[in-house]
Amino acid sequence: MTLKTPQQYVDSIEKLKPKVFIAGERVENIVEHPNIKPVINAVAKTYEMALDPRYEDFGMATSHLTGEKISRWSHVPQSIDDLGKRRQMNVVMAQKIGGCNYRCAGTEALQVLAASTYDMDQKLGTEYSKRFNSFLRYMQENDLTADMPQTDAKGDRTKRPLEQEDPDLYLHVVEKRSDGIVVRGAKLHQVGPMACHEHIVAPPLIPLRKGEEDYALSFAIPNGTEGLTYICQYGPIEAERKAAESIGELGIPEYGSLLTAMLVFDDVFVPWERVFMCGEVEFTLGILNRLGSMHNMLCRGSCKVGLMDLVIGAAQTIAEYNGISRAAHVIDKVTEMLRVRETTEACAQAAVQNGKEDPIGSGVYFPDLMFSLAASLNTHYGFSQVALLAADLAGGAVVTMPSERELQNPETSQYVKKYLKGVASVPTENRMRMLKFLQHWAAGPQVAAVYDEGSLQVSLNAMRASAVAALEEKKKLAKELAGVKE
Amino acid sequence: MTLKTPQQYVDSIEKLKPKVFIAGERVENIVEHPNIKPVINAVAKTYEMALDPRYEDFGMATSHLTGEKISRWSHVPQSIDDLGKRRQMNVVMAQKIGGCNYRCAGTEALQVLAASTYDMDQKLGTEYSKRFNSFLRYMQENDLTADMPQTDAKGDRTKRPLEQEDPDLYLHVVEKRSDGIVVRGAKLHQVGPMACHEHIVAPPLIPLRKGEEDYALSFAIPNGTEGLTYICQYGPIEAERKAAESIGELGIPEYGSLLTAMLVFDDVFVPWERVFMCGEVEFTLGILNRLGSMHNMLCRGSCKVGLMDLVIGAAQTIAEYNGISRAAHVIDKVTEMLRVRETTEACAQAAVQNGKEDPIGSGVYFPDLMFSLAASLNTHYGFSQVALLAADLAGGAVVTMPSERELQNPETSQYVKKYLKGVASVPTENRMRMLKFLQHWAAGPQVAAVYDEGSLQVSLNAMRASAVAALEEKKKLAKELAGVKE
Amino acid sequence: MTLKTPQQYVDSIEKLKPKVFIAGERVENIVEHPNIKPVINAVAKTYEMALDPRYEDFGMATSHLTGEKISRWSHVPQSIDDLGKRRQMNVVMAQKIGGCNYRCAGTEALQVLAASTYDMDQKLGTEYSKRFNSFLRYMQENDLTADMPQTDAKGDRTKRPLEQEDPDLYLHVVEKRSDGIVVRGAKLHQVGPMACHEHIVAPPLIPLRKGEEDYALSFAIPNGTEGLTYICQYGPIEAERKAAESIGELGIPEYGSLLTAMLVFDDVFVPWERVFMCGEVEFTLGILNRLGSMHNMLCRGSCKVGLMDLVIGAAQTIAEYNGISRAAHVIDKVTEMLRVRETTEACAQAAVQNGKEDPIGSGVYFPDLMFSLAASLNTHYGFSQVALLAADLAGGAVVTMPSERELQNPETSQYVKKYLKGVASVPTENRMRMLKFLQHWAAGPQVAAVYDEGSLQVSLNAMRASAVAALEEKKKLAKELAGVKE
Amino acid sequence: MTLKTPQQYVDSIEKLKPKVFIAGERVENIVEHPNIKPVINAVAKTYEMALDPRYEDFGMATSHLTGEKISRWSHVPQSIDDLGKRRQMNVVMAQKIGGCNYRCAGTEALQVLAASTYDMDQKLGTEYSKRFNSFLRYMQENDLTADMPQTDAKGDRTKRPLEQEDPDLYLHVVEKRSDGIVVRGAKLHQVGPMACHEHIVAPPLIPLRKGEEDYALSFAIPNGTEGLTYICQYGPIEAERKAAESIGELGIPEYGSLLTAMLVFDDVFVPWERVFMCGEVEFTLGILNRLGSMHNMLCRGSCKVGLMDLVIGAAQTIAEYNGISRAAHVIDKVTEMLRVRETTEACAQAAVQNGKEDPIGSGVYFPDLMFSLAASLNTHYGFSQVALLAADLAGGAVVTMPSERELQNPETSQYVKKYLKGVASVPTENRMRMLKFLQHWAAGPQVAAVYDEGSLQVSLNAMRASAVAALEEKKKLAKELAGVKE
Repeated sequence: MTLKTPQQYVDSIEKLKPKVFIAGERVENIVEHPNIKPVINAVAKTYEMALDPRYEDFGMATSHLTGEKISRWSHVPQSIDDLGKRRQMNVVMAQKIGGCNYRCAGTEALQVLAASTYDMDQKLGTEYSKRFNSFLRYMQENDLTADMPQTDAKGDRTKRPLEQEDPDLYLHVVEKRSDGIVVRGAKLHQVGPMACHEHIVAPPLIPLRKGEEDYALSFAIPNGTEGLTYICQYGPIEAERKAAESIGELGIPEYGSLLTAMLVFDDVFVPWERVFMCGEVEFTLGILNRLGSMHNMLCRGSCKVGLMDLVIGAAQTIAEYNGISRAAHVIDKVTEMLRVRETTEACAQAAVQNGKEDPIGSGVYFPDLMFSLAASLNTHYGFSQVALLAADLAGGAVVTMPSERELQNPETSQYVKKYLKGVASVPTENRMRMLKFLQHWAAGPQVAAVYDEGSLQVSLNAMRASAVAALEEKKKLAKELAGVKE
Repeated sequence: MTLKTPQQYVDSIEKLKPKVFIAGERVENIVEHPNIKPVINAVAKTYEMALDPRYEDFGMATSHLTGEKISRWSHVPQSIDDLGKRRQMNVVMAQKIGGCNYRCAGTEALQVLAASTYDMDQKLGTEYSKRFNSFLRYMQENDLTADMPQTDAKGDRTKRPLEQEDPDLYLHVVEKRSDGIVVRGAKLHQVGPMACHEHIVAPPLIPLRKGEEDYALSFAIPNGTEGLTYICQYGPIEAERKAAESIGELGIPEYGSLLTAMLVFDDVFVPWERVFMCGEVEFTLGILNRLGSMHNMLCRGSCKVGLMDLVIGAAQTIAEYNGISRAAHVIDKVTEMLRVRETTEACAQAAVQNGKEDPIGSGVYFPDLMFSLAASLNTHYGFSQVALLAADLAGGAVVTMPSERELQNPETSQYVKKYLKGVASVPTENRMRMLKFLQHWAAGPQVAAVYDEGSLQVSLNAMRASAVAALEEKKKLAKELAGVKE
Repeated sequence: MTLKTPQQYVDSIEKLKPKVFIAGERVENIVEHPNIKPVINAVAKTYEMALDPRYEDFGMATSHLTGEKISRWSHVPQSIDDLGKRRQMNVVMAQKIGGCNYRCAGTEALQVLAASTYDMDQKLGTEYSKRFNSFLRYMQENDLTADMPQTDAKGDRTKRPLEQEDPDLYLHVVEKRSDGIVVRGAKLHQVGPMACHEHIVAPPLIPLRKGEEDYALSFAIPNGTEGLTYICQYGPIEAERKAAESIGELGIPEYGSLLTAMLVFDDVFVPWERVFMCGEVEFTLGILNRLGSMHNMLCRGSCKVGLMDLVIGAAQTIAEYNGISRAAHVIDKVTEMLRVRETTEACAQAAVQNGKEDPIGSGVYFPDLMFSLAASLNTHYGFSQVALLAADLAGGAVVTMPSERELQNPETSQYVKKYLKGVASVPTENRMRMLKFLQHWAAGPQVAAVYDEGSLQVSLNAMRASAVAALEEKKKLAKELAGVKE
Repeated sequence: MTLKTPQQYVDSIEKLKPKVFIAGERVENIVEHPNIKPVINAVAKTYEMALDPRYEDFGMATSHLTGEKISRWSHVPQSIDDLGKRRQMNVVMAQKIGGCNYRCAGTEALQVLAASTYDMDQKLGTEYSKRFNSFLRYMQENDLTADMPQTDAKGDRTKRPLEQEDPDLYLHVVEKRSDGIVVRGAKLHQVGPMACHEHIVAPPLIPLRKGEEDYALSFAIPNGTEGLTYICQYGPIEAERKAAESIGELGIPEYGSLLTAMLVFDDVFVPWERVFMCGEVEFTLGILNRLGSMHNMLCRGSCKVGLMDLVIGAAQTIAEYNGISRAAHVIDKVTEMLRVRETTEACAQAAVQNGKEDPIGSGVYFPDLMFSLAASLNTHYGFSQVALLAADLAGGAVVTMPSERELQNPETSQYVKKYLKGVASVPTENRMRMLKFLQHWAAGPQVAAVYDEGSLQVSLNAMRASAVAALEEKKKLAKELAGVKE
């Protein structure tokens, strides 16, 4: 067992020199840049957690390849118990960092490819599985972190990849060589790609069809590979952090929220031993379904439950600071937040508990798709409601509060301390801190937390599609009881 | 193992002669009365199911008292597996009869009293547990059915039992004798009490306080005991059934929906060996919490999931009969129904999976209270929405359809068959049948299905009360991350 | 001025002998039949109201044809003030009878045809307008009541009239003769057709196209015309009323809720002077839009506001009878009901206030379509919520209460009076009466009240279609402010 | 008529030297500071609009004091027509600047004080009205702008002003002198106070009681008066603007969103001729009710309708840019946005149309309170839903988009232009611009737009309180129909 310490992780990333841009400028040192540091901090925290004896029960796992103790972050689930521990890890991480851990997608990629490469090999006689297992062993032995670039640029959303004016709007092969392939395109909305060791690229978010073979691609390349450019998101939250005098004045000082980047592949070379799918369009649907069942459970239904704990806890705290926590309407609102939170966790737990081994025999376990989707939809509808209710409990100051810098300004600090006080027993500094924390959720990126993993309609469509047989069964039950004879 | 057949059950009930009234009249033969027959049918179905080899896995259980094979309907859960099978049984029953099985409350009563009598004996040195176990053995050995009268008349809802003008508005002891007690009062909203063998009376739905000892009562008496009067509910659904020329013209011909009665105790004598609580006010809260965790999981979160299957199946069928099942808005509505259904089942499953042995050591298992309440609230908000969506898919005819008797009337049958036709391939008779079935849900007792097990606020209050510690934990998490130091 | 008294109206209807069926039987005397009497009572109430000096301000109007004082129920709106008074009349009627007044559709038909016949004459040189005005004058001078059969049988909802296997699934001309036309088909969901003097038939609820001329039909025929058959709806509410020992035991004793019938046209002859459209497919859309603007304002946005007043009033009363009216959650629920009610009325008022003369110059006024649709959608979403909230305040007894006949039964009356009591100061009889009234709304036909005037999707589609230009305008505003230059 | 031009307004503000702080620093030149300039721009736009012939119909009014033509922004409504034009002005302003116009509260203050000072004089024989009219004339003749500081610091929300540990948590008189009064305290959440000429201070948001005379205060003082300190809000949106290289990269370049400040009164002197209330606690409720009726109509129900137009327009535009505008779910979402918007406008219109002269005879008109509150609640529930739906149509890029600065960066501009393209016909620059505009609403201050004018509960409480008589009336209607005789 050679797990990395947080510092070893940071050092290993500092050596890579990806071409990262933010706010129109090249980032010189990704480890020190104010907007990228929180990403590094979050991933470092995952390394810390794996080594923390308090979390040993779920932080570590046993590799099915080597039998060695490894970090659960690079483990492929072999049982319902594995799925449950992975779920638990996500809840705890979200509670600790208040945002993305930047590693879910990478672990999902490992899990899905373990099953899908096995699937292809069984049916097509390919050797993807062998290549993939060798990559997986490399990941586990070196305790590396990965992300999973997946969402293409897509252009006109009504058009298939080949119907677009620009063929590069979906990532595709532009050249096949004896030693590998050359790819071109871009993957968007990618969470923290500059902070991982490897990019495990997945095929597009739509099932591909015959004729679209050049787009049916999966492969792994190291962060910083020649031809890659990383263009980061930049909005108010990033601007505020970039301009901050001290991180202490920000909503979540150390970890911030979520930093994504557009990852551009400008004729990037990938050696064959790192290619895990190339042209097998009929297997892209399988990848999507496997990802759907894991991602909705893990990211929507578990991570967000941990975030809701923070929002609920902050809302209850601010209600107490304001002196209103016993008012009937406050109790009602907190209860509604709790209902949303418990409901979402229940869906994720049911998804795990009804999980199954992938039917093709790879030994990889996946959660139940329907319950995963229910978790996802409840988060979608519920998370923003939780944030809005929290805003209501915080009151107008969650928006109108001045900067905490005023606390250091001799001309204004006395006024701020005097007039932003809530109940007499709580120092104004604490009330301001909690308001700023809530501002992060209720007056800011709450939409981001819900919307950055695929639109509502994707989940709705998926649920309906998964229910074909279930609907037939329900119809039968109704007809039987109604006495309809057909 | 001496399980009753359905016919043996019916025969055993026919012998009892409870004083039952409906629509202002005394019921002479409860087994043949049109409004009571569906109740008998539903309970008979539970006996049929216990004997059905298809349901053997969950229909039967092993008594922890005798080690004998018994019907699960009189088993006290000894493990999470037991809770799960009990849950499954309720879902299947609801799918088969489209309404109340009339036995949940009775099995909950057995489970709760097994724990609560043990609890009292441990702490007070009483002998309730021995009495109760002897009663339980009697129930199991004779394969009997019970209900659980619980809701008192309550009068002025802002007043405690002793503050009411009429002390009988909560059931209470009026005399203690050497051989037993005499009780007076009424229990309302009781589901199918005339169709069971035993009434297991529970204390009121509010935790009692010192001074209210006369109201802290639990005991069992046979159906038809001297002094008992059963006054049945009577509304449009009951009137329609009573006036029907044939049950085939009703929404759910054999089982109907839900028949309740007010059970009046006019100085009823109960022998001491059937008294399981008498005056121990401090243990009434424990009974409520135990009931809450089981009832919300079982009745709200499992039975209603089975009912939703029927409503969803009927809605999808009628959409197909109407030719609209591929319209985008229809797919959206069905998907939303599925989301509600899956969410509720997930909560019930999570309640079971996180179930625990009662902490006092009785060996009895209960589901997790928070997840049970989440199931209950999701049903409360969701079930009527599911019914309304179904109505929307059915269209106006779900309300305006003529009686199916017209199909036998030579003057109107040709018109009805011609003009109530949907898609050409489906006989009008089937479309009318399905519309009538949906009318039952969407234009009738859907509110009943939601509201007859306690009001919304009870669940909301319970959830909030259960969350005290959880809220503290969440506050801690938020403060830690926000950097609040207190 | 020769307005009918209520009794004169009843006498005039008694003379007609329509072939009416309900529950599989022919109705001999429509004026005395328990299910039809409430319809007669409701219409009689409209006659009473027109003569009532308290309502003179809006009950009467001045005919634009004759300058005579007439009942507003047969007036065609000539101004915004007319629209407003019509709105007000509907609110008051709903408050007084708790259900359909059975005359809205007829007055809408007069209004729409006044505009549409004028429109056709202007553009096609036809003489429909002259025929129609002569009919309108007849209606006004004899103070008659009409309904408007409109919804066809429709069969397979994905198919146009001529694509159906049975061409009669939409009402159509089967013969044109020198003296008139012969029509065949059926109109469904028709409110109270047996209680009016005239049927003013409207074309289908879809805009017709070239080739569908035989279906583009509007005409008027007297109730009871040869070839007409009326087949009434029959469900739990109707069964309960039919079987009642006294109307006093019903939710709304005198007026009940809503009785519809399927109106079958089996080769019915219509003389040319009563034909107002025959083949002009391009004018059917105009009829739909005119109806949409008036009907959604009048029936959804005004009648339902009056009904909500009753439900809110009953909910508040039962809360007081139960002693809970000062609980915070009760106040919250009543406030939410009020919000829904005020919102819906605001939309209806805005529809009236933004009303306009029909652009073709007929002088007829119509409300604003967008605000009418907003009223309709708010009713659609809100009415059932109001009913469910009322059920929550009433508690389980709204479903489980016994018949009020028990109050006359010496064996049960004392028990019922004793145990269904709420606060001590209110007689149990009053509490039971109010519960029964609420049962009507909350455990019964509330879905009917929402769904019998067209499905949700119709309104949604209509709103979207009406907003084409508005959307363009909004886009322009956004682009301008965002600085998008195209 | 001597209306100010926009430039004259800016010049007049530049001369004032208020002590303004933001982000911990003193603002030297308020007219040039990046965070304050948008406020100045918005107010300047109100001056431009008053002079714009296109808006003449509602931009100008006739003073009831002088009979002169004046800007409607300083006019006191004398009729329903005045209320309607004021409403219209707010909608148009919101459509043009996409945020607060910073003048509503000031005009509300003039309107309310015109009535309340008259009220006090009538009942108490004071001379407030004369003082106030002389101030109003000064405002009108010099075409000045005002704000209305109203929300106090409040401290412990369960405590009255005098129960607070610090008596200054509500603004109060600390000294009464022969020439005026000295006041201390702070007013929070004040919109744009540094950009107006006058502050018209209102009493607290709770009705005051006997003994709290020192807090019953209303007066006017010029911006920049000695003793005043302005501490501005500072969050992500402000940080982004402060750090912007060019305003073109911001969501709404010229006007931004909403800038508030905390206004500290450190022993500020107010001469008696500027004092409009001092100690008359029994008149504070009247001020609150008058404000409630106008503010909810004007700010919640009209301004927000204009903002919704922008969000809906942007959502429809981005759907078209993405190529998805014809998808059924997109049409459904846009329709739902329209329903919310039309509903809110209807409520505001109904509030105006049912407006009345203040009953005390001052001649001042106010909108109907119930409909104003309905507008407010619909905005409260609906605005965030509109924003969330817009986010859903925009897709993940609304959060993850890079800075538009990248378009100027030779290393990234080609990638951004290539891969952020939607449909081929739309330049990427336009799509990015529209995404950034939507980010402003959907991933940012949408909560602010809803929450900065008082919490949900305030409106809920107000609606319930206004409905006492209406509820009685509804109860009467229900009892009459149910046949309840009391």
